Amino acid sequence: MPQFEELSALLGADVVSTDHDDRLRHAHDAWPLSVKHDQRDHHPHLPGGVVRARDHAQVATLLRWCSGNGVPVTPWGLGSSVTGAPLAVHGGVVLDMSTMDELVEVRESDLTATVQAGMRGDELERRLNQRGCTLGHAPQSLARSSVGGWLATRATGQFSSRYGGIEDLVVGFTVVLPDGRTVELPRHPRAAVGPDLRQLFLGSEGTLGVITEVTVKIFPLPEHRVVEALRFPGVRAGLDALRLIMRGGLRPFLVRLYDQDEARHTLADPQFSGSLLLLGSEGAKPVAEAAHDTALEVCAQAGARSLGPGPVHAWLERRFDFSGVQRYLDAPGGYAETIEIAHFFSRIEALYTEAKDALAPLADQVLGHFSHVYPQGTSLYLILLGHAEDIPSAEARIERIWETTMDIALRHGAALSHHHGVGLARAPYLARSLGDGAELLARLKHALDPDDVLNPGKLGARRDARPGATDAS
Amino acid sequence: MPQFEELSALLGADVVSTDHDDRLRHAHDAWPLSVKHDQRDHHPHLPGGVVRARDHAQVATLLRWCSGNGVPVTPWGLGSSVTGAPLAVHGGVVLDMSTMDELVEVRESDLTATVQAGMRGDELERRLNQRGCTLGHAPQSLARSSVGGWLATRATGQFSSRYGGIEDLVVGFTVVLPDGRTVELPRHPRAAVGPDLRQLFLGSEGTLGVITEVTVKIFPLPEHRVVEALRFPGVRAGLDALRLIMRGGLRPFLVRLYDQDEARHTLADPQFSGSLLLLGSEGAKPVAEAAHDTALEVCAQAGARSLGPGPVHAWLERRFDFSGVQRYLDAPGGYAETIEIAHFFSRIEALYTEAKDALAPLADQVLGHFSHVYPQGTSLYLILLGHAEDIPSAEARIERIWETTMDIALRHGAALSHHHGVGLARAPYLARSLGDGAELLARLKHALDPDDVLNPGKLGARRDARPGATDAS
Repeated sequence: MPQFEELSALLGADVVSTDHDDRLRHAHDAWPLSVKHDQRDHHPHLPGGVVRARDHAQVATLLRWCSGNGVPVTPWGLGSSVTGAPLAVHGGVVLDMSTMDELVEVRESDLTATVQAGMRGDELERRLNQRGCTLGHAPQSLARSSVGGWLATRATGQFSSRYGGIEDLVVGFTVVLPDGRTVELPRHPRAAVGPDLRQLFLGSEGTLGVITEVTVKIFPLPEHRVVEALRFPGVRAGLDALRLIMRGGLRPFLVRLYDQDEARHTLADPQFSGSLLLLGSEGAKPVAEAAHDTALEVCAQAGARSLGPGPVHAWLERRFDFSGVQRYLDAPGGYAETIEIAHFFSRIEALYTEAKDALAPLADQVLGHFSHVYPQGTSLYLILLGHAEDIPSAEARIERIWETTMDIALRHGAALSHHHGVGLARAPYLARSLGDGAELLARLKHALDPDDVLNPGKLGARRDARPGATDAS
Repeated sequence: MPQFEELSALLGADVVSTDHDDRLRHAHDAWPLSVKHDQRDHHPHLPGGVVRARDHAQVATLLRWCSGNGVPVTPWGLGSSVTGAPLAVHGGVVLDMSTMDELVEVRESDLTATVQAGMRGDELERRLNQRGCTLGHAPQSLARSSVGGWLATRATGQFSSRYGGIEDLVVGFTVVLPDGRTVELPRHPRAAVGPDLRQLFLGSEGTLGVITEVTVKIFPLPEHRVVEALRFPGVRAGLDALRLIMRGGLRPFLVRLYDQDEARHTLADPQFSGSLLLLGSEGAKPVAEAAHDTALEVCAQAGARSLGPGPVHAWLERRFDFSGVQRYLDAPGGYAETIEIAHFFSRIEALYTEAKDALAPLADQVLGHFSHVYPQGTSLYLILLGHAEDIPSAEARIERIWETTMDIALRHGAALSHHHGVGLARAPYLARSLGDGAELLARLKHALDPDDVLNPGKLGARRDARPGATDAS
């Protein structure tokens, strides 16, 4: 592979690897279909090599070289994507950002922290906690995802009702464009100086630029926290309560509504009937208590009965635990999927009902919860767990699950993804979802990446395999 | 003007006007320099004609025609810009959107309202109030600005600390691109389906597309409101209180800190000493009260003394009143400017002090307040009022005020604008502020408007006067 020799000469041999095991470790993310591929030694997205960048300048040199040579380059945070977003579908280079993992600066008076993009979430949270602060961003993948990955996929965390999604939590960042140009996107409390160019890269899934350093908002650790679990007669009553809590401006940090199937799972109580709400407020003590009491009143009016704080504490203990899903995935014919979509309150129940009915034949268990709630609507998170005869059958089942769910979401006019992003899993459905926006996105892609080297083949971009690309893969 | 005859034939004579008075009414916005120009019958931005569109299709037809014929077209909401944003610097067509002013739909269960972009703010607010709802967006210009204008300039309102800026309040919209293509940008509670393409047009000041219909978030009218005015020993103590209130997550709907000069003005008390805070919480009664009490404690610890609710009520009465500024502008040699910038808490006091000192010789009065506050920092709003010998001297003074303020903001690394936008007033300083982002913005402009017809010459785009353009103007 002469191209990687050239890269070694350019960047240093220590940052360029063509070791087979290293390439294999960057050939699969946490997308269940990719996990299944790996289990049967099928590696359709094996990159030609891996570059571990040390600084902005190396990223810029690499991207400039890739653009000049038509070599695909796919950014990789920590590989925790569940959609295939960082898989190199056209081979070439995987740019592993995990070596850029320093905490650059914390400004407590301004409540900002600046970190290199490859820093792991839990490590950053730990460092902030030591200073009495928190990110406010707590995805289930906190211990296996990177800050840059959060931005690239428009991630959101378990406490988004209070703290917002990553788009609300970013102050500014440095991004390297495909031609190697480095742009520092403004770091201001707020500005009206042209369009917010930061937003172009949030959710771009590594197709428009490589984010190398990020300034995020941080928060003081909350002074007080109050939590409660509640049982509702059913999903409809629970959704009514969510809607009324959010329109009341109460901003609970925790608001998760489980349907009966997932509630039975979560409570380990196969007899549980109804839906389960985990609710909590935090912040200044009198405000958190007043908000919580008001939310509890809303719930009572919607027919809720208190279950005490126990189930919330149990959930808080287990909230980063993937073992339930992992157990299914580990079994030879086992499969598991998590699909999150979002819709308005007026339409979410119909969406939920149709999805549950349509998916029931496709898995042993179809669990559903609503865990990111807005005054306008909510996410719907579906978990599918099942066993098929063998790995290929499990893969076929996963694909059928995606087709079914995406088709329903499209027909209902729902958001195809709430926070996992598009990747390969949703790629077939992207054009229908974006409508005329697809052409707009293609124009932006061409304006920034005319050589189509940055994570090619993603977010609707098509790339014909080129000699340069296949040479390098 | 044969081009306008062609346009009349294409769109209908009733929507195309080349009447001189009509063109004059679209040759000046509320930018003080433009007001002064108008006073001495100087009309450097007189358009060739005015088109009043009735629907999306007419906007699309117009834009397609302008792109095809190289004729500049500059979108115009209600002309309330204070920066020259909607002035046709290269002549051509002004597209007046005020005739697209219908309320399309209110969905109370989802807390959304869909309106045509030309609708005036106060009319929409009145219609929402009748249904027990509010926009949450209340710029001082509410009665003279349009919904589309808010989006195009990244506007924010007086209650932004609770409700956010317009970027937080937009659900989705329809935008017509320069080639006439109409794109419906997704309306979802939240999504992670590629970059948020809406953000490209927010703050684009009519250079990238014409927004024709908008879905915004709405809110139930608050159940309860508590307010209080407080005196602090000085600006530093007041800023400390703002910082602590915001980092406590208290979200007051009203948080305005006036320096001594503006406090004396506002209270009509020339003896007032210190700084003045207008503070208020709203929402569910127990929560609003708890938040307000907590904020008052913070203020007391920072050395505040209560002045009762009176000054807040007086401000609420007068909050849409422009007469103070208008009186200065109306006088022949009189001038007035309002310049809003923003910075982090750790740097705002130094910025404020230097700006006040440097601007003092340039006006009779330099008033300052901080009225959009975040956990990270705050806006600084400067009001300059003065009298010069004659109109040209007043114009020279206005230009000197801009140069001085922008230079200081740039040296301090502050945001050049918090919410008024760039327009012509900030155009000379844009490149220095955006740095490498300027080239990125230029690439996006070229990708969307390759013929450079949409509000040409704005947001850093350069346009050489073309034959087609000058013909039409």
